[in-house]
Amino acid sequence: MMRPMDPRRLLPPPPDQSFASDNAAGVSPEVMDALAASNAGSALAYGDDQWTRRAEELLREAFDAPVRSYHCWGGTGANVVGLASILRPWQAVICADTAHIVVDECGAPARFSGATVIPVGTDDGKLTPEHLAPWLAWQGVEHHPQPAVVSITQSTEMGTLYSVEEIGTICDAAHRNGMLVHLDGARIANALVATGADLATMVRDTGVDVMTLGLTKDGAMFGETVVFVRPELDADARFVRKQAGQLVSKSRFVAVQVVALLADDLWLRNARHANEMASSLAEELAGTPGVTIDRAPEVNSVFARVPVAKTEQLQDWSFFWTWDRSAGLVRWMTSFATGRSDVERFADGIRAILAMGGPIASLP
Amino acid sequence: MMRPMDPRRLLPPPPDQSFASDNAAGVSPEVMDALAASNAGSALAYGDDQWTRRAEELLREAFDAPVRSYHCWGGTGANVVGLASILRPWQAVICADTAHIVVDECGAPARFSGATVIPVGTDDGKLTPEHLAPWLAWQGVEHHPQPAVVSITQSTEMGTLYSVEEIGTICDAAHRNGMLVHLDGARIANALVATGADLATMVRDTGVDVMTLGLTKDGAMFGETVVFVRPELDADARFVRKQAGQLVSKSRFVAVQVVALLADDLWLRNARHANEMASSLAEELAGTPGVTIDRAPEVNSVFARVPVAKTEQLQDWSFFWTWDRSAGLVRWMTSFATGRSDVERFADGIRAILAMGGPIASLP
Amino acid sequence: MMRPMDPRRLLPPPPDQSFASDNAAGVSPEVMDALAASNAGSALAYGDDQWTRRAEELLREAFDAPVRSYHCWGGTGANVVGLASILRPWQAVICADTAHIVVDECGAPARFSGATVIPVGTDDGKLTPEHLAPWLAWQGVEHHPQPAVVSITQSTEMGTLYSVEEIGTICDAAHRNGMLVHLDGARIANALVATGADLATMVRDTGVDVMTLGLTKDGAMFGETVVFVRPELDADARFVRKQAGQLVSKSRFVAVQVVALLADDLWLRNARHANEMASSLAEELAGTPGVTIDRAPEVNSVFARVPVAKTEQLQDWSFFWTWDRSAGLVRWMTSFATGRSDVERFADGIRAILAMGGPIASLP
Amino acid sequence: MMRPMDPRRLLPPPPDQSFASDNAAGVSPEVMDALAASNAGSALAYGDDQWTRRAEELLREAFDAPVRSYHCWGGTGANVVGLASILRPWQAVICADTAHIVVDECGAPARFSGATVIPVGTDDGKLTPEHLAPWLAWQGVEHHPQPAVVSITQSTEMGTLYSVEEIGTICDAAHRNGMLVHLDGARIANALVATGADLATMVRDTGVDVMTLGLTKDGAMFGETVVFVRPELDADARFVRKQAGQLVSKSRFVAVQVVALLADDLWLRNARHANEMASSLAEELAGTPGVTIDRAPEVNSVFARVPVAKTEQLQDWSFFWTWDRSAGLVRWMTSFATGRSDVERFADGIRAILAMGGPIASLP
Repeated sequence: MMRPMDPRRLLPPPPDQSFASDNAAGVSPEVMDALAASNAGSALAYGDDQWTRRAEELLREAFDAPVRSYHCWGGTGANVVGLASILRPWQAVICADTAHIVVDECGAPARFSGATVIPVGTDDGKLTPEHLAPWLAWQGVEHHPQPAVVSITQSTEMGTLYSVEEIGTICDAAHRNGMLVHLDGARIANALVATGADLATMVRDTGVDVMTLGLTKDGAMFGETVVFVRPELDADARFVRKQAGQLVSKSRFVAVQVVALLADDLWLRNARHANEMASSLAEELAGTPGVTIDRAPEVNSVFARVPVAKTEQLQDWSFFWTWDRSAGLVRWMTSFATGRSDVERFADGIRAILAMGGPIASLP
Repeated sequence: MMRPMDPRRLLPPPPDQSFASDNAAGVSPEVMDALAASNAGSALAYGDDQWTRRAEELLREAFDAPVRSYHCWGGTGANVVGLASILRPWQAVICADTAHIVVDECGAPARFSGATVIPVGTDDGKLTPEHLAPWLAWQGVEHHPQPAVVSITQSTEMGTLYSVEEIGTICDAAHRNGMLVHLDGARIANALVATGADLATMVRDTGVDVMTLGLTKDGAMFGETVVFVRPELDADARFVRKQAGQLVSKSRFVAVQVVALLADDLWLRNARHANEMASSLAEELAGTPGVTIDRAPEVNSVFARVPVAKTEQLQDWSFFWTWDRSAGLVRWMTSFATGRSDVERFADGIRAILAMGGPIASLP
Repeated sequence: MMRPMDPRRLLPPPPDQSFASDNAAGVSPEVMDALAASNAGSALAYGDDQWTRRAEELLREAFDAPVRSYHCWGGTGANVVGLASILRPWQAVICADTAHIVVDECGAPARFSGATVIPVGTDDGKLTPEHLAPWLAWQGVEHHPQPAVVSITQSTEMGTLYSVEEIGTICDAAHRNGMLVHLDGARIANALVATGADLATMVRDTGVDVMTLGLTKDGAMFGETVVFVRPELDADARFVRKQAGQLVSKSRFVAVQVVALLADDLWLRNARHANEMASSLAEELAGTPGVTIDRAPEVNSVFARVPVAKTEQLQDWSFFWTWDRSAGLVRWMTSFATGRSDVERFADGIRAILAMGGPIASLP
Repeated sequence: MMRPMDPRRLLPPPPDQSFASDNAAGVSPEVMDALAASNAGSALAYGDDQWTRRAEELLREAFDAPVRSYHCWGGTGANVVGLASILRPWQAVICADTAHIVVDECGAPARFSGATVIPVGTDDGKLTPEHLAPWLAWQGVEHHPQPAVVSITQSTEMGTLYSVEEIGTICDAAHRNGMLVHLDGARIANALVATGADLATMVRDTGVDVMTLGLTKDGAMFGETVVFVRPELDADARFVRKQAGQLVSKSRFVAVQVVALLADDLWLRNARHANEMASSLAEELAGTPGVTIDRAPEVNSVFARVPVAKTEQLQDWSFFWTWDRSAGLVRWMTSFATGRSDVERFADGIRAILAMGGPIASLP
């Protein structure tokens, strides 16, 4: 009996670099070299090393301000350390309901700080002063969690960007009401290159009080840094970090990555490349029947709608995450490591699968 | 006026490898090579990669049992994840008052699990069934925290070792009273080579329920693994790990280190070397006036007493930690990276400083 | 110079019983008598007394089921104990965004359980299975808090009622998805008399797993009881209650109130009276210019809209809470202690104030 | 067949008032009268009532200082509120290992504050500056919980008393090291009458920063008050109290008890009587074969040693708590309600049981 030909044989091979997330990439070669180079000799643990001191210098240069920096292991941990350093358990942090601290950290910030996370619905993952207004009536009344921090993400989990002015506006609104501003910058580099701003303009001058400066998704092996832009806010931070299990023992190996990425603007070049690859992918797929991209990518993600019936087949071929399965909304991400050939191969595969008939029920 | 000669000019240069702690060492060259090798291509994050699967296999071989393993960032985090997976907030864990979870984790295990840590005084950092007895009367009475876990450290923070039989005895006592046993194995490799036992004998057969298997101090860059020896205890572990901020995003880079260290018994060779260097140091210093070493090193630490008045001068020359400053008790640690020349130079410096007159008050 | 006459002189005296909340009332005379009567002799503390045993019997009769009951001090505490007994820190409870556990407990349930509270927008404070649907995709994925409990309030904070059928429907949806149902019954008695159902029909048969049975607002001095309708869920409850600071020491005095209220259906008579007074007030005010009551009271609260410019003057005369100040939405509550004359006097005052000119700016 | 006579028939009836604990007593008649009297009319909840204001006045008179007071439901809750108001999660509180916050609160203070409780062994339940010394080396080092509060109990759980001078000495030592002092005064009235000091002398002038002022064991139905002797420490207290589930809704009923007890020194008369009854009991039993009372009662408890083999029989007759079962150490407590006839009857029963032969094995 003749078996039907496996339709996958018609598909191009999946791309070498996954479009699932920017953390599916490895490590920038320069970072790996720096790790190896820093391995000579011994160095006291827990931050008492030359690389940690050098990283602090570079961060102060980047912010052009006497910021205080605390390297942590990962992004959830860094958000926890930053937030728990400025929140008391009976207080609350207001953020978009799409925020990583709401959706993707299994409740860690609320659990560790004790504080309430207030998720607010938005159109595009971005908060405005209007979003804060309804909660201000809670201030001063003991029955309610006390709004004390606003947390924004730049670039957002929806692939959108705050302008520098928008960040300034939300910071002003927060400060006027006695609140501090936390910025989750897991993808801050992508935002900087997309807007052309630098950290001094986008973060220091707008009034952000504390941020997570993420490098893992931008070419590091691990390590996210809590930066207290207002240095006087760090009084408790080293204890919070230790108690949160985020103090790196062989600390040179986190600091040297910060040094390697910042020293020569590698982090910005990496981010620029990632952003460009997302634009390329969107362009490649423009006009593809079945693919709708409502918004040109602002950073390194493409949010697209594809036929629901095809999603699984696409994922089987080369995995990515759905954002809203029932609506067919999916996310494709690029990274420093994404090559132009990866973009082409990925677009080819998508086109090929969408051009086929329905899902192949009889596939053995 | 003639200035007194700086007495430090008479001292040998400090050793290349610090004796402050085994985490002052870098990374085993084989581990660094494996990290670099694993950097090719992309790999899904959060444990969905081939290295994580291979590490699980190797761990099961090492325990000769279907253990479940959860890689974490660091030692404090791994202890938190292990303990919080098996403790409820109204329960208690009994441990030696010298335990890392009492002294060196800034309260993290209690904070995160909510449970009470009951520190018990011991002679040598080792618990016996007698230490549990007084707390058993609390079981079942709602006013008291409910003893539910015993946590032991192997090798202990005091540089001592449990025999396999002693571990079995404490496990039996715990289980008889409805309690589980957690083992903090930040230096388990040192204990294995010192006793000649393997994980199956020392951990699986004795009845340990869950352990932290530490590799950072034994040649890894980072990464400590929570191993559920009784696999049915891991039901909540992945959620606990995520909420504790211990889920590694680019997970291949933690798993590949486990693979590199376990695959060829590198972890045991590293530990054996570290232990030998501690013995060498103790031998070198035997009979040195002013140095008292009460107990031959069992693993990779030398606990010694030195003149209190000299401690600071010794630390200035080559840093180490005091254990009891007023009693002159200090700890010197060796690692896989400690060389024989480091031992000699360290011993030379100690002898030289102790042979000098009192601390040099007039040093400018 | 002649001063303008103080317009408050024209107002009737405020009612003896406040319409601010049902906890502005005192204690049912029968309850006070029972407290005094139970004061003779000594009784062991912490629940080992005859009144606690009698209260347990009466609750089992009321549910017609072998429920387990845990008296607590207050409503926030009882919600904390109930929820923390059935939630793990990495789990989540879904509830209306108007729920007391979201708005009025200063974050206590999340803080103490560690779990995430997911507030869901509703029209009327009532959850339906549709409200659960979006969160089910989180189940099983370690990045997200794990939806494990649905919490509903009966009668709701918006003064609305679930029908018995609606409760059954939400319970079925929860159970189908592996979730438990918690019911905040701070005003359960008002709901029972309004619907004519009993606890067996409304709570036991619908599938509610655990509830707070509140009596404070219904004539008790203090005391809210966590009832495990499914008794097997109470395994940890006595430890949770003690650790939450909710174990009553002189326990006879909480239990005797439960006995006094349940024994002779006093709790239902009290609630019926409170509901009737709310209906009376709504009727009294029907057609009053400036007062809009969109919905006839279902239980013991009247939600009305009044002119924003008059709100403060009304509150100054006889205090009540605004629900949405900018929309002029206010809440008036009645209790077992509200008299017909209180209703009349309150309505008279409102009419008088609304009939006056604008707020008197020049009032000295 | 003749059955052996039940030896219990030979025993006197047990006393009307239990010697198990001072919380086995009911409520002072004056307190019950005040509760009934305050029941007229309505009163806003949560502390906005005349009784709460009057209680604040009376407390300020008693301390002769502008203290701030926060009524809570119970003793565990009040300790939680006081400690959590002055502790951060990475800090630690040092206390005797016999302290209520260690032994009898199921871990509540540590759970709720997040901070570490450091239990210190003492001879008599009393801390001295020497007990603090070993922990001071932890200050400033991020690996360790940061000692920030000393908690003492007056009178202690061991029935002992600090002198005013001793409290001053421990406060000075704490303050010199940047720590605050918390006093658990569940039985402060007993200590005051025993020493002849007043609150101003014993608490304000010695330097205690915050205390739990307990009245439940001294004649109240419920209610323990957190008093911030240094009023500037209360900045967060109302939020902490609410989040801890300790805000009393019908607040008049807790405040009126404070008023009733303080207004006319009823609380001191109650305590004096309780202390006298303990002395009487010790005198009654002096010289009784089998009863050893090492220390004359200082307050309202008698710690005695009785034959281990008789303990259960004694408890069966009239329940009390053992302190160290294997050593035969038991505690008998008196209260405001203990009558002279209770003392006599209790002593008679003890003598009768101890005079009998061994435990009656064949009792059917």
